[in-house]
Amino acid sequence: MTPGGPSAALAAFAARTPRVPDDVRHEAIRAAMNGFATGLAGCADAATGHAVAVAGRFSGPRTAFAIGRADRFDPLTAAFLNAVAINVFDFDDTHPGTILHPTAPVLPPLLALAETRAATGAALLDAFAVGVEVECRIANAVSPGHYRRGWHITATCGVFGAAAAAGRLLGLDAARMRHALGIASAQASGLVETLGSMAKSVGVGNAARNGLFAALLAEDGMKGPARPVEGPRGFIRVTADDPDETRLTEGLGESWELLRNTYKPYPCGVVLNPVIEAALAIAAEPGFHPARVARATVRGAALLAERADRPAPAEGREAQVSAQHAVAMALLHRRAGLAEFADAAVADPIAAALRAEVTVEIDPELPVGAAVVEVELADGARIARRVDRARGDAERPLTDREIEAKLRDLARYGAPEVDPEPLIAALWSLPETPSAGHLPRLATPAA
Amino acid sequence: MTPGGPSAALAAFAARTPRVPDDVRHEAIRAAMNGFATGLAGCADAATGHAVAVAGRFSGPRTAFAIGRADRFDPLTAAFLNAVAINVFDFDDTHPGTILHPTAPVLPPLLALAETRAATGAALLDAFAVGVEVECRIANAVSPGHYRRGWHITATCGVFGAAAAAGRLLGLDAARMRHALGIASAQASGLVETLGSMAKSVGVGNAARNGLFAALLAEDGMKGPARPVEGPRGFIRVTADDPDETRLTEGLGESWELLRNTYKPYPCGVVLNPVIEAALAIAAEPGFHPARVARATVRGAALLAERADRPAPAEGREAQVSAQHAVAMALLHRRAGLAEFADAAVADPIAAALRAEVTVEIDPELPVGAAVVEVELADGARIARRVDRARGDAERPLTDREIEAKLRDLARYGAPEVDPEPLIAALWSLPETPSAGHLPRLATPAA
Repeated sequence: MTPGGPSAALAAFAARTPRVPDDVRHEAIRAAMNGFATGLAGCADAATGHAVAVAGRFSGPRTAFAIGRADRFDPLTAAFLNAVAINVFDFDDTHPGTILHPTAPVLPPLLALAETRAATGAALLDAFAVGVEVECRIANAVSPGHYRRGWHITATCGVFGAAAAAGRLLGLDAARMRHALGIASAQASGLVETLGSMAKSVGVGNAARNGLFAALLAEDGMKGPARPVEGPRGFIRVTADDPDETRLTEGLGESWELLRNTYKPYPCGVVLNPVIEAALAIAAEPGFHPARVARATVRGAALLAERADRPAPAEGREAQVSAQHAVAMALLHRRAGLAEFADAAVADPIAAALRAEVTVEIDPELPVGAAVVEVELADGARIARRVDRARGDAERPLTDREIEAKLRDLARYGAPEVDPEPLIAALWSLPETPSAGHLPRLATPAA
Repeated sequence: MTPGGPSAALAAFAARTPRVPDDVRHEAIRAAMNGFATGLAGCADAATGHAVAVAGRFSGPRTAFAIGRADRFDPLTAAFLNAVAINVFDFDDTHPGTILHPTAPVLPPLLALAETRAATGAALLDAFAVGVEVECRIANAVSPGHYRRGWHITATCGVFGAAAAAGRLLGLDAARMRHALGIASAQASGLVETLGSMAKSVGVGNAARNGLFAALLAEDGMKGPARPVEGPRGFIRVTADDPDETRLTEGLGESWELLRNTYKPYPCGVVLNPVIEAALAIAAEPGFHPARVARATVRGAALLAERADRPAPAEGREAQVSAQHAVAMALLHRRAGLAEFADAAVADPIAAALRAEVTVEIDPELPVGAAVVEVELADGARIARRVDRARGDAERPLTDREIEAKLRDLARYGAPEVDPEPLIAALWSLPETPSAGHLPRLATPAA
């Protein structure tokens, strides 16, 4: 380990890692593609709207684009708004084990910097990879006690990742990088109590903004504590009851947390993924018509019933964890996208009638992550489908083409005036791009 | 209690309290006077300089003054910079029992708002009083476990006070005020590990900025969780191991935490207050001359020796908790202000020689808060002084005139181009002032 402890080691890694492997860079592109996808959907949300209205009013020099918007903002404000948009629907990426959403805090500071300071596409990808590495390693060290205690890990650990990524792109040396992590530590915030309310987004937006702010302050010469992560009153000891310090640095620079990243195919709780897939398979049967459905049964492990047995969700946010609603949407519309989990879809009386015919049962034989959906038709015929590993699981990741399709779909949903094709092409060509400064503009109607 | 629990009760109190008593308003003026004083000193500090350089670069429309500076900033940035300046030297006010510095997070958002939205002086004082009440009550509920765990209570609880104060001046109703507290809860941050480094100031600056941001977002219609303070994953349970929820609301609107506020006469650890006072009394004796001092002894409770027996401090920050240095300065210069605790004063060889002659002894007969200083002169004569309650203690508060004198002294130290007299006069006349918008400008060279 680097002399000086984990904070120094993480800082040295973020400042100096000579080379990020090609497969990690490729995963960085996939994560960025998924981030632009959910950002293009989230830019239209009400929480993002309030953030734009207030933060925009106080924006400084307007050099940075925000995803899905024609107007520009100062880099700190753009980082804030993009993190809000990427995360607001919880449809962004997930780091297994910590349930941290890695991209929302880390990508936005890099987009904002790339527009005002020269950065190659490769430098942007490398900065993204080291930022995700730092935030996920700190998250590993405080898991599972940190989230369980009530800390929204995406926001609290994200600010360190944002600082590391921004510091890397700014070219901070290891000493200044450590100060950037120290200044980030003073800003780590975010409570689980805010989940389900718009306030969640302010925590995530601040993680991106304040990480960038920390890196810029360190660049200017501001100093932080020597051991912000592991010190006696530092981040991991204060925010977790039983932190594991070894996870901060074990295999640092050899293994990459980004390679464990996962992407959601559906905008709802992950326990519903196999349910939706099984129901979509039934709806795709030749001759299937939803009007012929008499009743349906969902079977899964106890966890599925605990989390998702909700026959009458009141609004879209609750429907995201309703197995009854998920089955109804898959059977009625053969889709399970943002529109199917919006308030209007939940209020539809045809959907309500079908939800009432869906029962959730515990089947102790089924492992967590698996589900069976069985539909009984009006004539007594039955169709059943079992899914053991849904798409989006670590073992069955979304393909590159599926992530592209997600971007096209979410752009249509939230920012129909944005043409997704040039953005998709630019993302794939990032490793060879001499300047990444054009990227954010491609995600706006101004392009 | 208001239906809905403590968060709702605090929000209703902050939004609606019909009348703040006159003695509370008077204490609000004293706190503001002390805040301007330490801000006029702190505006010249290096940490403030970095904050101005970076945050200033991204400032939006420049409508708000920052203490001690000729240029203006957007209100969020001005709130950040003023909180940094007020708190950077730890020479600001202290709420006994929690060690929270109440004014730094709460006053700056009000100054920034007063410049852009109409506010009477009385409205500003009332908003300040309710903001301090909210932050100190939340601090009471989490003390002492919160600080002990490693949370910098001024920053973590300050953001709630800033939101309540700003929300009050904005005229938020109780429902929006509760959302403001909810949005503030997503932003509560600040680690004790950062104390002693410049990063501390970023936490305190953010408390002011982000509390104002929360109130403005709530004004715009953004919503937060229903129970941000006391919910199962809300602030007090997540950040303290044994919170006392009753302290949030007991006697709310009847007792006022602001009346317990204290102000420091000297820029150093409070254990040194009686030591300095005893040494100053000796130095004021007719015929006393520091060149005649052979040796000196400081006696006090064990706590005094534990905290302050430091014969050879390396720099100003360490000298702030050195009894030897405090005695040397009082005897040599008959003063104990910021100049006497700056790096240059510590490096002075005459001071070093005198420090070497000062011994700290434990006297178990002396209570905490008391001290005896005894000086032996070259001719063998001895002069001893005992102080049982130093100025600045809750039982021996600084007088109005002493707080005025502190402002004059600190303006001379950090912002000699600012004339303190119009500012002092404007502060005393606040209860009758139809518009408080002119106040911040009076603390700048532009006035």
